Amino acid sequence: MEQSVAKPIRCRAAVSKAPGQPLEMEEVEVAPPRAHEVRVRIICASLCHTDVTFWRMKDFPAMYPSILGHEAVGVVESVGEHVQEVAVGDTVVPVFLPQCGECDDCRSARSNICSVLTYRPGLMPRDGTTRFSFADTGEPVHTFLCVSSFAEYTVVDVGHVVKLAVGSAPALAPEKACLLSCGVATGVGAAWKVAAVEAGSTVAVFGLGTVGLAVAQGAKMRGAKRIIGVDLNPDKLDIAKRLGITDFVNPNETGGKKTVSEVITEMTGGGADYCFECVGSTSLMAEAFKSSRKGWGKTVILGTDAGAAPVSISSSDIKRGRSVTGALLGGIKPKDDIPVLAHKYLDKELELDEFITHQVGFHDINRAFDLLQQGRCLRCIIWMDNNGGAKDTVARA
Amino acid sequence: MEQSVAKPIRCRAAVSKAPGQPLEMEEVEVAPPRAHEVRVRIICASLCHTDVTFWRMKDFPAMYPSILGHEAVGVVESVGEHVQEVAVGDTVVPVFLPQCGECDDCRSARSNICSVLTYRPGLMPRDGTTRFSFADTGEPVHTFLCVSSFAEYTVVDVGHVVKLAVGSAPALAPEKACLLSCGVATGVGAAWKVAAVEAGSTVAVFGLGTVGLAVAQGAKMRGAKRIIGVDLNPDKLDIAKRLGITDFVNPNETGGKKTVSEVITEMTGGGADYCFECVGSTSLMAEAFKSSRKGWGKTVILGTDAGAAPVSISSSDIKRGRSVTGALLGGIKPKDDIPVLAHKYLDKELELDEFITHQVGFHDINRAFDLLQQGRCLRCIIWMDNNGGAKDTVARA
Repeated sequence: MEQSVAKPIRCRAAVSKAPGQPLEMEEVEVAPPRAHEVRVRIICASLCHTDVTFWRMKDFPAMYPSILGHEAVGVVESVGEHVQEVAVGDTVVPVFLPQCGECDDCRSARSNICSVLTYRPGLMPRDGTTRFSFADTGEPVHTFLCVSSFAEYTVVDVGHVVKLAVGSAPALAPEKACLLSCGVATGVGAAWKVAAVEAGSTVAVFGLGTVGLAVAQGAKMRGAKRIIGVDLNPDKLDIAKRLGITDFVNPNETGGKKTVSEVITEMTGGGADYCFECVGSTSLMAEAFKSSRKGWGKTVILGTDAGAAPVSISSSDIKRGRSVTGALLGGIKPKDDIPVLAHKYLDKELELDEFITHQVGFHDINRAFDLLQQGRCLRCIIWMDNNGGAKDTVARA
Repeated sequence: MEQSVAKPIRCRAAVSKAPGQPLEMEEVEVAPPRAHEVRVRIICASLCHTDVTFWRMKDFPAMYPSILGHEAVGVVESVGEHVQEVAVGDTVVPVFLPQCGECDDCRSARSNICSVLTYRPGLMPRDGTTRFSFADTGEPVHTFLCVSSFAEYTVVDVGHVVKLAVGSAPALAPEKACLLSCGVATGVGAAWKVAAVEAGSTVAVFGLGTVGLAVAQGAKMRGAKRIIGVDLNPDKLDIAKRLGITDFVNPNETGGKKTVSEVITEMTGGGADYCFECVGSTSLMAEAFKSSRKGWGKTVILGTDAGAAPVSISSSDIKRGRSVTGALLGGIKPKDDIPVLAHKYLDKELELDEFITHQVGFHDINRAFDLLQQGRCLRCIIWMDNNGGAKDTVARA
């Protein structure tokens, strides 16, 4: 069988060796895929805030050395035993959230949290090992979120790849497909799958990074009539409007004495129907909750709070018909729903182009980290191909 | 017009004069109903924990003197101007939660929190006055939760009464109707309207008072296959089983080292589909949340926390597809849904009889307070009619 002859590959990877230090370009050895695994040649990746959060993190679940990256698109190079779903040459999107397809959760329309392929920090989900090692010393390098896309080749469990089949429609450009593997899917999915935003409703989005603006896109797609964006950075106004935000609230400019929730409650005559927290701040989660309307207001928690502080909500407020929920990857089931999002883009129901504000070659990956931390970028595409250097342009300042 | 000639009525009322002190039987004057109000002769009332909570409360929103009581059934004695919905002689259930029928909330299937008739502690909702005064001194006596049913006559806004129309079915006995005005409706509604429990699912109920056991009834009515009850009092086991509880967990008997949520997670292989907090303890709310299953677990907050401490939930847990919601009166719309519950009782889909563990005459109302505080009773019916003394028996010990 062809897969049994797959050999280790030596290639470049951007390795994270210590918290907050620039990634170092290293030659690594990528082992062949084992059973239920596929080895993927990465075409391009993009940088998500979760990469930055882990890159800064000193303690477990951060692990060193490791290869970060979990938004990408690539081509299957080889497959391990028992892989039927994809074949060599298929274009796939590796995704941090698995879908085994067979457990109670995967079979239920209500859950996207697979019970079989459970997350093991730094390791492959099925056997708890890694496929990466330094080419010179042989020292193992940890994988990251089961994806590790900041490498020319990676090995991913077949439960973590989505085959992009867009039928007879024109194929999705790789930099667009890449966006669907985490941030954009999370935001759009939250409005679509988690909140199931109703036509004509009012939405408040806290934090206008990629996830927040994708929530705006999702809410617009669902027919929301008013989409209020909350962000401290006034420079986001233009792109926010292009992505569907109808009203902008800057917490620094609420007239001094009013909280954001008071402003939103006033603007909406009682609170927003749906509130989305996209930052990962527990105080903002509480503020989002307070901005939700009595009777039916729903708050969706999407941000990751690094300190894992609890969300604090008033039981008296929640008893007035409010609810709080949350999701990973916006509640979407990767294998079922990412192809649907691809279709929606091709059908012009979903905007993706605006999210790509920057593009760099792989050798320049640390610049992507700088840009994201400066709040100057939504998504920076990182092209693996050296010729990608030609695309090393700042698309929009 | 007949209603314009209604005169003040002098009658008995059990007046709460100071926090935690026995109610005092007093002669009060009950003013005629004003516009949009009805005066009701109470047939019987029942005692709910919220009465006890307010009876003990030292500060606002508790007010003294006042007439407590908010579970009752009665007959319309007179009506004020603009009252079309009910007429003299109609049997009605006064309810603390209003339904004006015309605001955005009343018109929406998603809310039961009326926007027009807003709650004013101690006063009537529409004009902020009271209809009660001491017969001897004329000193005003506060109303309570817009109902004040521990009196032979009370005045209630028409938005707060439900006319019981059970068609050609046999009329509901007053003591059964009475139960539908708060506690039982809250529990059944929570399973039916708020959680929309699905057939075959697993439910955990925290606190097996009337609300918790009514949740069990509601969950059973919806086809839940397993209903786990959590209570510190082992004496509740028998009645809990009769009302639908299939498994009983006593937090004092979990083998010492396990929390209730750990026990429930083990029993259910991952957590309950639906968890209901029916006590009003924020630590129990957190425990209920932790007992809910990843992917789709829903926690419903029903208890009233006297201290109004916030609920604290892990944002990482909520992002794994869990949600927390809450409701007043179990999310039911009084005028629409209480008649439905009455039908369900008459059709034997809903059990009410078991909730009536004690009955006393009005003169013995303080005994009802003692019994409820001793944890010896679910619902004690208080009969207004002096002949009710004949019913002054402890139905079940």
